[in-house]
Amino acid sequence: MTDPLRARFDLACDAATRGGALALRYFHDRDQLVIEAKATPQDIVSRADREVEDLIRAAITTAFPDDAILGEEGGETPGTTGYQWVIDPIDGTSPYLAGLPHWCVVIALVRDGQVAAGVTVHPLSGDLYTAIRGQGAWLNGQPMACSPDHRIDNSLVAIGASHRTDPQHVADVIVALMGQGGIFYRNGSGALMLAQVASGRLGGYYEPHMNPWDCLAGALMITEAGGRALPVAIAPSGGPVLAAAPGVFDALRRVVGGD
Amino acid sequence: MTDPLRARFDLACDAATRGGALALRYFHDRDQLVIEAKATPQDIVSRADREVEDLIRAAITTAFPDDAILGEEGGETPGTTGYQWVIDPIDGTSPYLAGLPHWCVVIALVRDGQVAAGVTVHPLSGDLYTAIRGQGAWLNGQPMACSPDHRIDNSLVAIGASHRTDPQHVADVIVALMGQGGIFYRNGSGALMLAQVASGRLGGYYEPHMNPWDCLAGALMITEAGGRALPVAIAPSGGPVLAAAPGVFDALRRVVGGD
Repeated sequence: MTDPLRARFDLACDAATRGGALALRYFHDRDQLVIEAKATPQDIVSRADREVEDLIRAAITTAFPDDAILGEEGGETPGTTGYQWVIDPIDGTSPYLAGLPHWCVVIALVRDGQVAAGVTVHPLSGDLYTAIRGQGAWLNGQPMACSPDHRIDNSLVAIGASHRTDPQHVADVIVALMGQGGIFYRNGSGALMLAQVASGRLGGYYEPHMNPWDCLAGALMITEAGGRALPVAIAPSGGPVLAAAPGVFDALRRVVGGD
Repeated sequence: MTDPLRARFDLACDAATRGGALALRYFHDRDQLVIEAKATPQDIVSRADREVEDLIRAAITTAFPDDAILGEEGGETPGTTGYQWVIDPIDGTSPYLAGLPHWCVVIALVRDGQVAAGVTVHPLSGDLYTAIRGQGAWLNGQPMACSPDHRIDNSLVAIGASHRTDPQHVADVIVALMGQGGIFYRNGSGALMLAQVASGRLGGYYEPHMNPWDCLAGALMITEAGGRALPVAIAPSGGPVLAAAPGVFDALRRVVGGD
């Protein structure tokens, strides 16, 4: 008998990959679609966002009709199995809109109130970042790990921000980070930056407020990849996220003043 | 008879592309090279940096032995023709070292104290960004343009920083930028971010201090792509850089307090 989490994880990988392929078609054709549909670029992104979430929701509903779903676009659908799917159809809509490569499709699986698995697809490179609680984290099926060599002063530390963020707090964090010999990074896709911490490319990630669909998958990847993370809010209202390579975590916590 | 600037521009494109291919081999093999050479990752990056500059210098010296050269690694070589080549063999060594995709090879051509042409190669995508003063800017041979729709509140604005930068100034700029409804971006390669402003992907770029090899090519690309830029220092000591899409420039200038 198939493990019920593994069956859902496999579906999440498949649905996120297919959703990513759909988002990529819109990405490459968006200038033409703007003309054809007499739409704004934002309209096209919104349409891609909705259609990718619809594709993923349809896959879930067919296979696991009694699971709960929380999607950035479609909101909450209740369920009865103890499993909840948390979907960000396109994380990084600003870079997507701008034609920049930093955007991804994200699915987290929550079981009985705990994040059990996460999947992030970066369609432009084909990279598939995954994690299962207690079992590890993988990039394209190969184990991935936070860098054991990263310190706050020798790695790029990602700082997320949005218009929900107090600018002065972000500024204070940047001053403190640079004061420790560190330097900031921000590419506009929080979920992708979290996955890049887990794959050893970035030293850490801090954002004062993230929604669960942006961060649940990536935060699990980091802890499964040997990094450390503060507890992440699963509730739709979201919360702060701080997650980093083991040699960066404590220093980053001091930098953000959370300690 | 060939135009002397065009002959040098063609050589710059060829040499930067070949330098990029060399850098890419080191990039893909750097973990293996670290083991083989019993070196640190930083040693391998330094070696790639030097070898790429040597390759470009050799190409120049063969074709135009009396031109001056300024390279990040090899310093200044005087010349007698009125032409100076300004080389950044790998811009974005931090991302390069981390395995992130944001790094490039950059050549600017200065003629009689004015930037006459610029070439930036992004080896991972194969993208070639170019500009010739008074003639235009191109991405892979097709004309490129800053976005006419970008404003400070609807585009990603790149903020460069280094350990030559006063952290408090960077923080003040970020507060002012977010106060205008804008948001910051930083991928660790200033030259690539400048090229991405010229190609319409980013709204603008500001860095309190850049070296000429980091910025001369990209700043020319932006003005040739319909954007605006404050005058850029050609002297090796460098200076501030502010360049942006036409609808972003004035607002960004106010944000950095330079007006």
